[in-house]
Amino acid sequence: MLRVGLMHVIKDAVHGDIPVSDVELKLIDTPEMQKLREIRQMAVAYLVYPGANHTRFEHSLGTMHITGQICENLSLPEDEKGAMRAAALLHDVGHTAFSHESEGILVRKKEGNHEERGIERIRNGRIGEVLEENGYGLEDICSIMAGKGSSGIINFALGSDRMDYLLRDSHYTGVAYGVIDCGRLVHTIKLKDGRAVIEWGGIEAAESLLIARFLMFSSVYYHHAVRIASAMLCRSVESALEDGSISLEELFSCNDAELGAALEKGKRSGELMRRIRNRELYKRAYELEFYRLNENGRELFRDYKGMEEAEERIKEKSGVDEVILECKQGYDEKFGESKVTIVKDSKEYPLESLSEIVVAIKRTEEMRRRAIIACPREDKKRVASVCESFFKKLIKG
Amino acid sequence: MLRVGLMHVIKDAVHGDIPVSDVELKLIDTPEMQKLREIRQMAVAYLVYPGANHTRFEHSLGTMHITGQICENLSLPEDEKGAMRAAALLHDVGHTAFSHESEGILVRKKEGNHEERGIERIRNGRIGEVLEENGYGLEDICSIMAGKGSSGIINFALGSDRMDYLLRDSHYTGVAYGVIDCGRLVHTIKLKDGRAVIEWGGIEAAESLLIARFLMFSSVYYHHAVRIASAMLCRSVESALEDGSISLEELFSCNDAELGAALEKGKRSGELMRRIRNRELYKRAYELEFYRLNENGRELFRDYKGMEEAEERIKEKSGVDEVILECKQGYDEKFGESKVTIVKDSKEYPLESLSEIVVAIKRTEEMRRRAIIACPREDKKRVASVCESFFKKLIKG
Amino acid sequence: MLRVGLMHVIKDAVHGDIPVSDVELKLIDTPEMQKLREIRQMAVAYLVYPGANHTRFEHSLGTMHITGQICENLSLPEDEKGAMRAAALLHDVGHTAFSHESEGILVRKKEGNHEERGIERIRNGRIGEVLEENGYGLEDICSIMAGKGSSGIINFALGSDRMDYLLRDSHYTGVAYGVIDCGRLVHTIKLKDGRAVIEWGGIEAAESLLIARFLMFSSVYYHHAVRIASAMLCRSVESALEDGSISLEELFSCNDAELGAALEKGKRSGELMRRIRNRELYKRAYELEFYRLNENGRELFRDYKGMEEAEERIKEKSGVDEVILECKQGYDEKFGESKVTIVKDSKEYPLESLSEIVVAIKRTEEMRRRAIIACPREDKKRVASVCESFFKKLIKG
Amino acid sequence: MLRVGLMHVIKDAVHGDIPVSDVELKLIDTPEMQKLREIRQMAVAYLVYPGANHTRFEHSLGTMHITGQICENLSLPEDEKGAMRAAALLHDVGHTAFSHESEGILVRKKEGNHEERGIERIRNGRIGEVLEENGYGLEDICSIMAGKGSSGIINFALGSDRMDYLLRDSHYTGVAYGVIDCGRLVHTIKLKDGRAVIEWGGIEAAESLLIARFLMFSSVYYHHAVRIASAMLCRSVESALEDGSISLEELFSCNDAELGAALEKGKRSGELMRRIRNRELYKRAYELEFYRLNENGRELFRDYKGMEEAEERIKEKSGVDEVILECKQGYDEKFGESKVTIVKDSKEYPLESLSEIVVAIKRTEEMRRRAIIACPREDKKRVASVCESFFKKLIKG
Repeated sequence: MLRVGLMHVIKDAVHGDIPVSDVELKLIDTPEMQKLREIRQMAVAYLVYPGANHTRFEHSLGTMHITGQICENLSLPEDEKGAMRAAALLHDVGHTAFSHESEGILVRKKEGNHEERGIERIRNGRIGEVLEENGYGLEDICSIMAGKGSSGIINFALGSDRMDYLLRDSHYTGVAYGVIDCGRLVHTIKLKDGRAVIEWGGIEAAESLLIARFLMFSSVYYHHAVRIASAMLCRSVESALEDGSISLEELFSCNDAELGAALEKGKRSGELMRRIRNRELYKRAYELEFYRLNENGRELFRDYKGMEEAEERIKEKSGVDEVILECKQGYDEKFGESKVTIVKDSKEYPLESLSEIVVAIKRTEEMRRRAIIACPREDKKRVASVCESFFKKLIKG
Repeated sequence: MLRVGLMHVIKDAVHGDIPVSDVELKLIDTPEMQKLREIRQMAVAYLVYPGANHTRFEHSLGTMHITGQICENLSLPEDEKGAMRAAALLHDVGHTAFSHESEGILVRKKEGNHEERGIERIRNGRIGEVLEENGYGLEDICSIMAGKGSSGIINFALGSDRMDYLLRDSHYTGVAYGVIDCGRLVHTIKLKDGRAVIEWGGIEAAESLLIARFLMFSSVYYHHAVRIASAMLCRSVESALEDGSISLEELFSCNDAELGAALEKGKRSGELMRRIRNRELYKRAYELEFYRLNENGRELFRDYKGMEEAEERIKEKSGVDEVILECKQGYDEKFGESKVTIVKDSKEYPLESLSEIVVAIKRTEEMRRRAIIACPREDKKRVASVCESFFKKLIKG
Repeated sequence: MLRVGLMHVIKDAVHGDIPVSDVELKLIDTPEMQKLREIRQMAVAYLVYPGANHTRFEHSLGTMHITGQICENLSLPEDEKGAMRAAALLHDVGHTAFSHESEGILVRKKEGNHEERGIERIRNGRIGEVLEENGYGLEDICSIMAGKGSSGIINFALGSDRMDYLLRDSHYTGVAYGVIDCGRLVHTIKLKDGRAVIEWGGIEAAESLLIARFLMFSSVYYHHAVRIASAMLCRSVESALEDGSISLEELFSCNDAELGAALEKGKRSGELMRRIRNRELYKRAYELEFYRLNENGRELFRDYKGMEEAEERIKEKSGVDEVILECKQGYDEKFGESKVTIVKDSKEYPLESLSEIVVAIKRTEEMRRRAIIACPREDKKRVASVCESFFKKLIKG
Repeated sequence: MLRVGLMHVIKDAVHGDIPVSDVELKLIDTPEMQKLREIRQMAVAYLVYPGANHTRFEHSLGTMHITGQICENLSLPEDEKGAMRAAALLHDVGHTAFSHESEGILVRKKEGNHEERGIERIRNGRIGEVLEENGYGLEDICSIMAGKGSSGIINFALGSDRMDYLLRDSHYTGVAYGVIDCGRLVHTIKLKDGRAVIEWGGIEAAESLLIARFLMFSSVYYHHAVRIASAMLCRSVESALEDGSISLEELFSCNDAELGAALEKGKRSGELMRRIRNRELYKRAYELEFYRLNENGRELFRDYKGMEEAEERIKEKSGVDEVILECKQGYDEKFGESKVTIVKDSKEYPLESLSEIVVAIKRTEEMRRRAIIACPREDKKRVASVCESFFKKLIKG
């Protein structure tokens, strides 16, 4: 890090020089933020894309940087810009090890989400002190993090958070799909009654980001091997929580490596972690495209229970110890995520009503949605043939 | 990873698509190689360059890739090329956690270097088996790794190892200095009596790589905060070995995070690790440029003992518990590293005899070489003033 | 250009080192190919994107390079690969100055297209000689250029031609949308009965290229100012052909600058060229979205005549000398262009039947298709109000 | 070009989005500036690097952009920053076709340099009017262009002009050597008594730029084929001026293509232009390294006359019509160019006194300096053998 006058400059692989103020540097140097250095942005995707070792720490810096650019473009007053930048910097501070994987489990256990945990960590730790010592409104920032005020700049479907992670994941995986035109997007975001919206002229920029995200999902985030590794990790965490190898408190406080080490101590969780470590991933035995499901099939996949039962049944029938039925819980929520308002002649329209492409992307995501049944390599054939007959009755004639 | 026919393709952030054969994939999937995913290429430099989380694993893939290109350019027979690629892939398999930092300590303790450990791990582990099962000459590969045969292609001053790490460190730190013209360099390397040399026409390509390396050293690898973080880490390891918090065996088998966790358990080593984690790095109290040293001064810095004594004396005089005198041991060896032979009209010349720039780079590295005396922020003033008087008698009048 | 052994290497800004054989170099060094250095790939788009000065020459090299990679991936025999590379290198040799703009006019005048002219130039010039002197089958290459044999590798909707121009136009305009994953696309193209097709597994790669192209069209190629400049240029050429300022022969033989100079000599053509040169472009007075047209409106835009009449009427009513009605002739053909066959379980499917996204792209292109009525800045208001009433009766109620 | 509020944004392939004010856009839209779109930045280097078609127009935009960043970093007042940006935008407006090639001839003919011509064009054309209509101080800007005031920001050895052309030439040639760390350099430039200087902490940034420039010179700008093409072009211009095919007035007003067309009309100039166009470049017959010259040799190369005589003598002795002795006139001036002042503890030092690398670069440039004797391919042998004996007596024993 170079020190330049009162401002500091942090060299970032994606945005180049990121200017940082004195207070922001103090926030960065809190243990809560430093911990994000040890949480990979893409969890276990590095097993498929070896460059994907980047962390929530650098993503936080990048999100702050883009947020500042949007605020400047909107000519927000300095203090509001400062608060937005701080909230952006802190937006992931509530993440636990293996962020999204753990998040799913915690939400299912009603343990709150990372936004809530983030606010709590800020209030009760060094970050809150730094903010107050330096005249920042603690409540303002928590309120932005809770999704109020102009928080849309950071977290709406075309916000700084998403812009940064698409660019960053592209840079580190080497998959070019996420290379969006950040400069143009920054110019198309407006605030209307405090909500982030897009002007009519920016519709193509908006589409391009949603397309980039779609392509990154289909080729990177939902790469079958990434999904399998991720499901194995979830299973490991669940099983460790069940047999008491780790406690919820540990889960909250660990970084990736610490959680990995803790998981290794459990029996089943340990076996799964050992496999992840050595990249002895389960193999795809069967793929079930959702659009082929009949009413019974859809019923089965409607809740977590049904899927657990299906898994058990497949294990039983094939006489195999380990089978994972993975179908990307959280897929449904994604449909809501892309809600973008376009303002044209001062009227508001949902982006989808103006963009067939956005509609097609959603439908395609739905059409290509599929469950993966994975198991150890040696059991693949047996499991495949059990699945064939098991799922037959759940598929349209 | 995409599977393409018999070849596999791994997406790399630096080289794009890296084709990998079936056997190479098996080598990659050994625990010994997978472990390299958890050893950062640049150890603690990520504290200064937040993107520098890339690992020895991807560097190994990249080195294999460039090695293959050089072999193709030299029209080496397929089996020789295969052996060279395998040796390149495996060239870092002997590295321990925080590679260079640990390496220094182990060498000082006469525990061998990472090349020797690498050969041992290959012979006694899964890698050796894979090689033999697939018709590779285990001894050929060990011999390349021991620096024999055409090993220069990988490890000479302009070899594939260095090419890859310069490009890779640039990509992940965001510092452009290491962006070398890999394609041209690949074409300028020749073999003469089995040794890697450069043809006269490639002298500028050779210079450009050595310049890139020089610039990366001065702005990245030897950035004062990187040096301080790295020295604190070394100190932590040494102290943990001394008080038995970790054993040599552990040091050999740990990855970065595991070693970090182990170090945290010791008293002094733990305090240092906690600081590193939270980026509460020691601050520069004093800098001593080596060219200013008189004969006594040079004597003091000649060996490790002298420096330890100086450190003790400074601590005593300033009444401060923690002072680190850091002067980049290993700097001396670097002088030897750049030995490159240029072939002109079938005569051989050392590169330095033909390139004033290469000479100037070396002299500049020497001129700018300096010791850093670092300590906790609060002791900075006191230590600075003690150093001022302590070093006065070691400096030319 | 570096000479490396028997192969030559040309440094390309997009692909890095492009290896070129002796014969290919001879082909490159013919006057017909050298002329392409003086024909900008994107005609007058440089008026809006100042970096867009790249030429058909470098695009030809790039297309040859990608073609070679596809052939290698398909393991085509060396001579077939050589013929394909040569045909790719030569694929644009029939282009005249301001390629697409002139092409439209020539096609309307039934003067043949650039593929036909290319074949003619090869047969009757130095290129044909070079091919025959070096054992290439002249007829093979002409037949590939005529769209037979495996020509699809070059010119189908996902072929090397398109891959190169998307990447290249991105690099030189600075608009990232065209950055496609060339490596992956190269691997997904297969030959079936001599036709280029895509395997099922490559559907997302296929979509990503068509998306990239769509985004480049909407933000770059169809940028309103690019369209206006391009329409002014067409008008200049037409008018010069009419009043005899240039002959068809000249049009065939000129490069961009020579044609520009010739056009400047005519009265109306000269005034238009002077404006283009000084970037005094006409301004948009009115935009007419095609989806709003009623039956009469669609009738009017069905052929070139109707549009000319409309233009005349608008000029008359507004008492203005210069009005251009631009509606991207050739838009219709584009619909056919994307015909891609996907092979799944050895059955063939049109891409559109499997990809809602491709369908949505086409529909969006159609929906957003619009005519632009442009005129000198000072007449803008008058023309706008005339258009308002003139087009009212052609628009759905 | 996107219009964003009162600011306009021009998309640049090197810097991304370049914001441009209303007045700056008016300056850009003058015929004098638009003409720069037709003057290639690197003249005929595109014959060797096919991507090198970028123009002085985009370079002017880029120089303005970097200049603005330096001014902001120095916190210059808005009006001063505005003047600096305008002067940077206009700094090349005096360039003629094939800038440096023509410049050499014109300077030899005492026709002034491009800075003087630029000031004249501003005063007597549309640019001066735009400046005055918008409250810019015409004299201030001319004075900056004449090298007064803070003009160093633009034109000193580490100024914005050089930064932009290194980055730009790298982007378009595909040679990575010119990729400098623009962000860091912007931060290291300071003003001392109105002169641009570098602070001690920026010495490595300074070195890195001079190194980048050195590498670009040796591999791109002084590539032997580029030198030969450039010498053939100079010869063509000289010969056309001599035989009256073109006048000095034409030379001043033409763009590249127009001058090319005019040169084609002369007999000798036309033959040379035809060769350049078709890339039938002369070949190297002989190379003479300057460090090998004895006193007589040095005498011969001291002025232009001596070299002309040598050329004549070689032609005579070999009985060949065309020989070019090229030795990069202007090489000498380059030595002065790198004068950079480093400020350390408020004392000033010439960069060379602190940097062995900078000294070595200069010495290497001098050591590797060489004359090239080139001629048509068929005469190569004869000319080579004549040169061998002709230069023998000019070479140290």
